[in-house]
This record gives sequence, C-alpha cells and structure tokens, in this order.
Amino acid sequence: MEKKILTSKPLLKLIYDDISLQLETREKYDKPGLAIILVGSRKDSLTYIKLKQKKCRELGIQCFLFIYPALTAIGKIIKEINTLNQIKSISGIIVQLPLPHNFSQDDEYKILNSVSPEKDIDGFHHSNVGNLTLGNPKMIPCTAEGCLGLLNYHEIPIKGKHCVIVGSSKVVGVPLSLLLLHEGATTTLCNIHTERIKEITNDADILVVCCGVPHLVDQSWIKEGSIIIDVGINHVSNKIVGDVNFDDVIHKVKYITPVPGCIGPLTIAILMKHLVNNV
Amino acid sequence: MEKKILTSKPLLKLIYDDISLQLETREKYDKPGLAIILVGSRKDSLTYIKLKQKKCRELGIQCFLFIYPALTAIGKIIKEINTLNQIKSISGIIVQLPLPHNFSQDDEYKILNSVSPEKDIDGFHHSNVGNLTLGNPKMIPCTAEGCLGLLNYHEIPIKGKHCVIVGSSKVVGVPLSLLLLHEGATTTLCNIHTERIKEITNDADILVVCCGVPHLVDQSWIKEGSIIIDVGINHVSNKIVGDVNFDDVIHKVKYITPVPGCIGPLTIAILMKHLVNNV
Repeated sequence: MEKKILTSKPLLKLIYDDISLQLETREKYDKPGLAIILVGSRKDSLTYIKLKQKKCRELGIQCFLFIYPALTAIGKIIKEINTLNQIKSISGIIVQLPLPHNFSQDDEYKILNSVSPEKDIDGFHHSNVGNLTLGNPKMIPCTAEGCLGLLNYHEIPIKGKHCVIVGSSKVVGVPLSLLLLHEGATTTLCNIHTERIKEITNDADILVVCCGVPHLVDQSWIKEGSIIIDVGINHVSNKIVGDVNFDDVIHKVKYITPVPGCIGPLTIAILMKHLVNNV
Repeated sequence: MEKKILTSKPLLKLIYDDISLQLETREKYDKPGLAIILVGSRKDSLTYIKLKQKKCRELGIQCFLFIYPALTAIGKIIKEINTLNQIKSISGIIVQLPLPHNFSQDDEYKILNSVSPEKDIDGFHHSNVGNLTLGNPKMIPCTAEGCLGLLNYHEIPIKGKHCVIVGSSKVVGVPLSLLLLHEGATTTLCNIHTERIKEITNDADILVVCCGVPHLVDQSWIKEGSIIIDVGINHVSNKIVGDVNFDDVIHKVKYITPVPGCIGPLTIAILMKHLVNNV
C-alpha cells in the first residue's frame, strides 16, 4: 500500500529549502509581506488563514490580516485593497474565499480584480487567468500549480493521457485543466450537471477530484491502474476526509494522494513560493 | 437528410437584420470602422480578408487593410497598432493569423496583446480571454461564439451533455470549451497527442471538430444520434471540405453542420456584430 501513496513531502522540502535560501540571501528591505483580506467570519476560512499565518511565522515573513464584517460595503474593501496595492512592503494580497452570501458573483469578480495583477499570488485576477488560458502563465492558482508539480515531481506522464477533473471551479478545476492541456493532456471537466459521470471517470488515466463531496468517488468510478489526485478537504465528524473513498479504491489505483497531508500543505507551500518569488 | 442539416442561415439573417437596424439609426460619427493587419502574404489569409472586406462593403462599414512584409520588425507592427488604438473612427482591430514563421509564439502574444482590449473584436487579448475563462465574457472569439449561438438557436440542450472538441487552439477549441462549460456542459478537449481518441469521441453527445485535417472524422468516431459541428475549412483539389467526412457520417448523426456555408459565414457575421456593437 505504501508504494501507492503519492506523497508531497519531498516536493514540500524542495520548495521550502528554496524559499529559505532566498530569504537568507535577501536584504531586509527585500523581504516579502503578505496581506490577507477576510470578509465575514467563516470558521473554515479562519482555519485556513491560521495555517497561512503559521507558515509565515515559521519562515519569518510578515503577515497582515484585515477582517471586515460580512455587511461591509464592497467599495470600502476595494479602497483598502487599492491602498495595499501601493504599499511596497506588501508583496502579495489574497482575498479569502468564499465571500459571505450577501456578496454576488459580480461583487466577487470586482474585489478579486481590484488586487493588482502583480500582487495577485492566488492567480485569480482576470489578467493572470487569461495568461494561463493562453499557455503563458504569470501567476497560477496555487492548488492547480501544486497538483501539476506533484505529477511532474513523480514523473507521471501527462502528454496524451486522459485527465478527468470532477469539479470545475475557477479556483482548482478550470486552471488545472488548462495547465494539463498545455502539457499535452486530453482534459475533461465534469460538473454537477454531468450525465453518465462514472462512464467518463472510468476512462480517466489521471482522475482529479475537487468537488467538496466527502467520499463521493468509490471503486466503481475508476479504472484499474489509474492515478487519483484527491483535492477534497471535508470535515466529517471531527475528521478530515477527501472526496475519494481511499480505503475502497486503494486496491484498484496505481497511485493516490492521501487526505489530509498532501495537496493541502502543497497549496500553502506554492502560495509561499509565489509570495517570496514576487519580491 | 435535409432535416439533419444544422443550418446557420436563419441565424445569419437575425444577426445581419440587427446590424442593419443599428447602422441605419446611427449618426455618421458613430459608424464603426475596421482595421485589419496582415503580415506576410499567405494566400488563405488574403482569401479570408477579402471575405471580411466584402461584408464591410455590403454593410457600408469602412475597412482599412494594413499589409506588412513578413520580415517587418515586431516593434513597427506594435507601434502601428498603438496608433490605431487611438483613432476614434476605428472601432475594431484584427490581426490576421497565423503570423509568418519568423514570428515566435511570444511575438504573436505581444502583437495580439498590443491591441486595446476594447477594440479586440477577435477576443484574443489576454484580458478578454481571462474574462471568458471566468464566465464573465466581454469579447468572445468569433467562431466559438458562433458555434454556441448555433446550438442555442436550434435549441439543442447543452447542460449536462458531453461536448467533445477535437482541436484545442486558442482561436476555437479552448474558448468554445469554456463557453460550453459555463452553460453546464461536460467538456473534453482533445489534441494531437490524445490516446484512444475514438473511444473519447464515441462518448460525445455533441462533437466539435476544429483541427484542420480534411475528412478526419468518419462514422467510426461517432455515436449514433450525436450532434456534429464541423469547423474545418480545408482546400482539397479546388474544393472546400470539412474535418468530418459528411457522406460517411450522415446516416448516423442527429444533426450536422455542412461545409462550406455554415460556421464560416457565421464567424464573419459575429465579427461584424462585435464591430458594430463596439461603437
């Protein structure tokens, strides 16, 4: 079983060794600084933010958290982001998603696009999204970059392979499909409306599941010898479980990522890499 | 057989009626103007340009053609585009693709991105591409918009359906896959490296072929009752043929677009619509 586990640990070490080296050799005024915007008070958002703050502390990177009540006017948030865009010691700005329900899709678009593309270390600005789509990426959404990095690190062939992605959010599914496409993969994006989904996932050489439904995927969804990347982080009765039923599929897969402890930490490492490279 | 043909004629009439109405009711200083940049002298590029010029003449729209030798410095072309960006009577600028072989992918990127996003009626600027990817399109590549418009005009269901696209260029395949995704489709992009491609195309409810290989797709590629959109325009022994072998597949399909005379004219109509709406 051990040899089927696609671990991110050695890749994490590479990324953090490089970050430490960069930070050590920098002058003080070249140090990165992170600004996190949180609107509302979602518990899971606070958990993710704490992980980012902790990592910044460990690396000696300054991290500033700006919390706004859910009912804050959008103009006020955008004004604050515009100010942060101008501050030289802030090298990266992230807006923790999702925004509260009183913010529309259009509000979210406006807020994410008020972050300067140069400081958009989440890669959500339409300018960064466009460059990724065109195969000329400047800043790639962190989880997507992490998944591709993991496949590359383990030298898993991508070109010509059928990569099926269950979940087509702009945060993970869509950008990852574009990255894999530019590596020569055949890419399929499934969503909540997909008909005959198991027929499609059963054709996948590489199956990425990022839909936030605990244990959705069991052995009936997958092909013998396929490679499974489980991006899910679901809190179920005080345990964290993925979107894939690990115990049910393990005998059938070639490789699978564990949850927790693989894509989650990798996402944070890529965020830190973006932040440090961005100075 | 007639009733299997997915014609664009009534949709073309709708688009041109709307354009004519808009042009009639406009003041003279609100008239659109098109600038076309051609680098080199490819015969097929000249053919496409002539079709656009002819359509402009018919509609009474001013059209300016700028031709540069293949060896023109990229800086000179970008400078010319910057000038056109400033001219109020030019409402749309297109750079005829492909550029000559002495231009790199990076050169092409720079040239396409020097067109002001507001005048980019081809939808190739990274800013427009990003907004399309995010499901918030401002300007959509014309052929992709035409294909979706055709499906919608004929009230063909898209949500949940498996749409397979053979050919993943930034001009057609990628933007069309994004449009269909945002309509709730399951989308698959195939390319030249795709393994077991017929297995994948055989699962398609809607198959779009846009790879520029004459008569590539025969009945062994498709599912009984599927809908085929043939984007190919290939010149074979003085005839224009599509990427699909029409005669071989016709008994098996539910609907199919003819070549020539469907997607080609639709692409030009959408370009004219962009130009006129852009004033």
